[in-house]
Amino acid sequence: MLLDFSTATGEQVRAACRAGVYTSPTPGLALGYVQANLVILPRDWAFDFLLFCQRNPKPCPVLDVTEPGSPEAKLVASDSDLRTDLPAYRVWRNGELVEEPTDINSHWRDDLVSFVIGCSFTFENALMAAGVPVRHIEQNVNVPMYRTNINCKPAGRFNGPLVVSMRPLLPAQAVKATQVCSRFPRAHGAPVHIGNPEAIGIRDISKPDFGDAVEVRAGELPVFWACGVTPQAAVMSAKPPFAITHKPGHMFLTDLKDTDLEGE
Amino acid sequence: MLLDFSTATGEQVRAACRAGVYTSPTPGLALGYVQANLVILPRDWAFDFLLFCQRNPKPCPVLDVTEPGSPEAKLVASDSDLRTDLPAYRVWRNGELVEEPTDINSHWRDDLVSFVIGCSFTFENALMAAGVPVRHIEQNVNVPMYRTNINCKPAGRFNGPLVVSMRPLLPAQAVKATQVCSRFPRAHGAPVHIGNPEAIGIRDISKPDFGDAVEVRAGELPVFWACGVTPQAAVMSAKPPFAITHKPGHMFLTDLKDTDLEGE
Repeated sequence: MLLDFSTATGEQVRAACRAGVYTSPTPGLALGYVQANLVILPRDWAFDFLLFCQRNPKPCPVLDVTEPGSPEAKLVASDSDLRTDLPAYRVWRNGELVEEPTDINSHWRDDLVSFVIGCSFTFENALMAAGVPVRHIEQNVNVPMYRTNINCKPAGRFNGPLVVSMRPLLPAQAVKATQVCSRFPRAHGAPVHIGNPEAIGIRDISKPDFGDAVEVRAGELPVFWACGVTPQAAVMSAKPPFAITHKPGHMFLTDLKDTDLEGE
Repeated sequence: MLLDFSTATGEQVRAACRAGVYTSPTPGLALGYVQANLVILPRDWAFDFLLFCQRNPKPCPVLDVTEPGSPEAKLVASDSDLRTDLPAYRVWRNGELVEEPTDINSHWRDDLVSFVIGCSFTFENALMAAGVPVRHIEQNVNVPMYRTNINCKPAGRFNGPLVVSMRPLLPAQAVKATQVCSRFPRAHGAPVHIGNPEAIGIRDISKPDFGDAVEVRAGELPVFWACGVTPQAAVMSAKPPFAITHKPGHMFLTDLKDTDLEGE
C-alpha cells in the first residue's frame, strides 16, 4: 500500500526518512507543516554563523539552533534526530562537496551545531491559499533563483551576496503577496524587490543562477524574495573545514504548522 | 547655555557622554531616536547569549552585535564607541556588581562582544503618539517590572524567568496598544499578557520586583510586555566571570529612528 505523504504529519515524514524508506525531494509533503533548511557547523564556527543569520534575518530566518553535539531540534520537532530525519544531505570539506548521503550518522561529532532555517514553502502555501498563483509550482519546476548585487551584512568569516527567488505576478497579486508574506517574517517575509531585475544586478531574468527559468507573462512583474540559498552560499564561500547541509529540495520536516509562523 | 537634550540627535547624546558631561538617565533624551540596552560578555560566552536572545526574541530583541574586541556598534550607530558613549555602566564579576563607572576604557578587552538590545522607550513613544497614555511617565516614576512564572527558553549556560513590565490600560486602549506595539517586534513587540496577574505568577501588582508601583484605576487592565531586564537577569544568574551592562535607565542612544524599527 502506498502511503500518501502529502497528508502525512511532519513526524511521519521524519520517521520514513529515518527508516531509510524516503530519500526523495520534499515539496508537497506533509502539507501545512513547516519545512526547513539545515546547516550544520562545528562549534567554533557557530557564533559567526548565528551572527550572520541575526544580521540577515530575511534570507536566514532561524527557527532552531541545537546545543553543540545534540542532534535533536527540540524547539521545532520533538524526538527528532537531525542525523537521520532528512531524505538526503550534503557533506562539505573546505567548501568542497564530498558526499551526498541519506544519513549522517558516520559524520556526526560532539562539537556540531545545527541551524534549522525557515523556507519559502511556508509562504507559497499561504500565497496559494490566498489565490495568488505560484508559477514554478504550476509549471512543475524548481523556483528560479538569482545572485544579486545586494551584499549581506557580513559577520566574522561569513559574507556574500543576497540570493533571491522570483515569482512573476500581476501588480494586484504583488500587492496581495506582500500583505500575505509580511505575516511570515520567519519564512523570508515580504518581498525584497518588485520589478526591474537590473536594479538588483540581475542581467537576464531568463537565466537564473540556480533552479529553473519560469515564464514572465505580459503585464506581470518579477517579484523577488530573500532566499534560503543565501546562507548556504555564505557557508560554501567561507570554506569551513567541515559542514553538512540538506540536499537542495530535500528539507527537514518540523512539527510546526505553517500558521505557527504567522505573526511577529 | 543649557543644551536641550530632548531635541538632540543620538550622536549628540553619545558625544556628550563620551566627553563626560552627561552621566544621567536617558528617558526623554533625543526623542525619536532608538535607545537600547547593552550587555557585554567575553567571546566564549557570546554564542550561548546570542542563542538565548535568538530563542527569546520578545524580551531580547537584538539590534546589533559587535565583532569580538570592536567597541563600535556599526549597524546602529556609526563612529560609536561603546566604551564611552553611555552615561553610566555596571561592571560584574562572577555575577556580583563591582563597579558603576561612567566609562569602561580601563575594563576593555580584545575578547569582548557587545549586544545592543531594543528597549521599551521605542514603543512607549509610539503609544503616546497614538493617544494611549503611559501611566509611569504621567506619574514620573520608573516602570513597574515583575518576575513571572514563565520560563525563558534556555540556551547553554543561560536560563531564567521572563521579566515583564506593566502599563495599566482601559480595554479599548489595550487593543490599540496591541496593534501599535505589534509594529515594533524589535522593541519587545505586542504584549505577552493582559489581565489577571496571578495567571503569570505575579501575586501582588502593587509590589513590583523592579521599578516603581503605579496606580491601576477602576476599569483598567494591567497589560504586560516582555522586558529588557530579562536578558540582564539571565546574565547575572549565569554568573559569567566578567560582564558589563548599562546602568539601569542609562541607555545607549543609537542613530536609528523609532520608525526604523517598524515592520517585520
